[in-house]
Amino acid sequence: MAREDDPIGELVALLSRLPSIGERTATRLAHHILASDGDYARALGASLSEIHERVVRCGSCANFCAGPVCAICRDPKRDESLLCVVGRVPDLSAIEKSGSFRGRYHVLHGLLAPLDGVGPDQLPLDGLSQRIKDSEFDEVVVATPLSVEGEATALYLAQVLRPLGVRVSRIASGLPHGGELEYADQVTVGRAFEGRREL
Amino acid sequence: MAREDDPIGELVALLSRLPSIGERTATRLAHHILASDGDYARALGASLSEIHERVVRCGSCANFCAGPVCAICRDPKRDESLLCVVGRVPDLSAIEKSGSFRGRYHVLHGLLAPLDGVGPDQLPLDGLSQRIKDSEFDEVVVATPLSVEGEATALYLAQVLRPLGVRVSRIASGLPHGGELEYADQVTVGRAFEGRREL
Repeated sequence: MAREDDPIGELVALLSRLPSIGERTATRLAHHILASDGDYARALGASLSEIHERVVRCGSCANFCAGPVCAICRDPKRDESLLCVVGRVPDLSAIEKSGSFRGRYHVLHGLLAPLDGVGPDQLPLDGLSQRIKDSEFDEVVVATPLSVEGEATALYLAQVLRPLGVRVSRIASGLPHGGELEYADQVTVGRAFEGRREL
Repeated sequence: MAREDDPIGELVALLSRLPSIGERTATRLAHHILASDGDYARALGASLSEIHERVVRCGSCANFCAGPVCAICRDPKRDESLLCVVGRVPDLSAIEKSGSFRGRYHVLHGLLAPLDGVGPDQLPLDGLSQRIKDSEFDEVVVATPLSVEGEATALYLAQVLRPLGVRVSRIASGLPHGGELEYADQVTVGRAFEGRREL
């Protein structure tokens, strides 16, 4: 007997490649989709098929958007003297949600990760450097994560960008809001002391 | 300004409709898909778009399959005297995985649920009744879940199928493998006693 055509198995295999979705969950999702009406599956299928074509990177800051320039770059009310560099678009969204920054952004779409083969050559900063030369930014806030990769990227950015005549700053590290000293790791407690401010 | 075209938001909204996927997880999945190569998104999209067309119900047992009759119904080595009735295809898969049943199956694709408006009229048994009349089954094993809906469906099946001259049986209820009496609910302990067997 020839190998059976197995559309459910194919869907389960594809869904299992998503983060935090194992084969069991993927099977449950596939059967839920089969039990739902076909319009939903087709709408989700079309959305996925088109997402890479419909979502492009903003020509100025590399944020995801549907047009050539994103809504933040088009907004004339943003502070032109401040630029915030982030590793990924979800980090930008988190900062926007917090309402703590009103300047411009630049998305790297990656971080230095020498162990994964991402060195300075794989993280091109030409666009960012050119943008800083062409604009009037006083300060670049590096808001990459506080992970090893994020910290390495921040140090690298400082090296590359400082010679362009801008101040380069780093977001603060310390105890999170509501954080208990008792349960914080040693590095975090150390950083909270290093970064202390006068009351 | 006209409302912005928002493909990521649309994808997040569609993914959020899947069970156990909230908006936060959907956003994470959408960004993972955008960070992956476009081929993966298109393959998953195509699989979803086509799944309702490619997966049909077996003309004999209503199991999901790619052709007119499923692999189990085509298998000549199955026991022709036993029929197992299940509520959903994942239940059939679980029974097959256990290797505890070698007869034929029938999938209801639903259970009686009067509170959700699923009464006997919404759970047509004509196909099942006709199949039992046309075949040589001695026994019908009702393997619907041990939930309220599954139990109600089992009682209803017994009423409808017994007059056709077959024995109708129900899968056992009791403590699960490795189950501790201390932590079992009262109904389960009661059923374990009711269903006790001589050693």
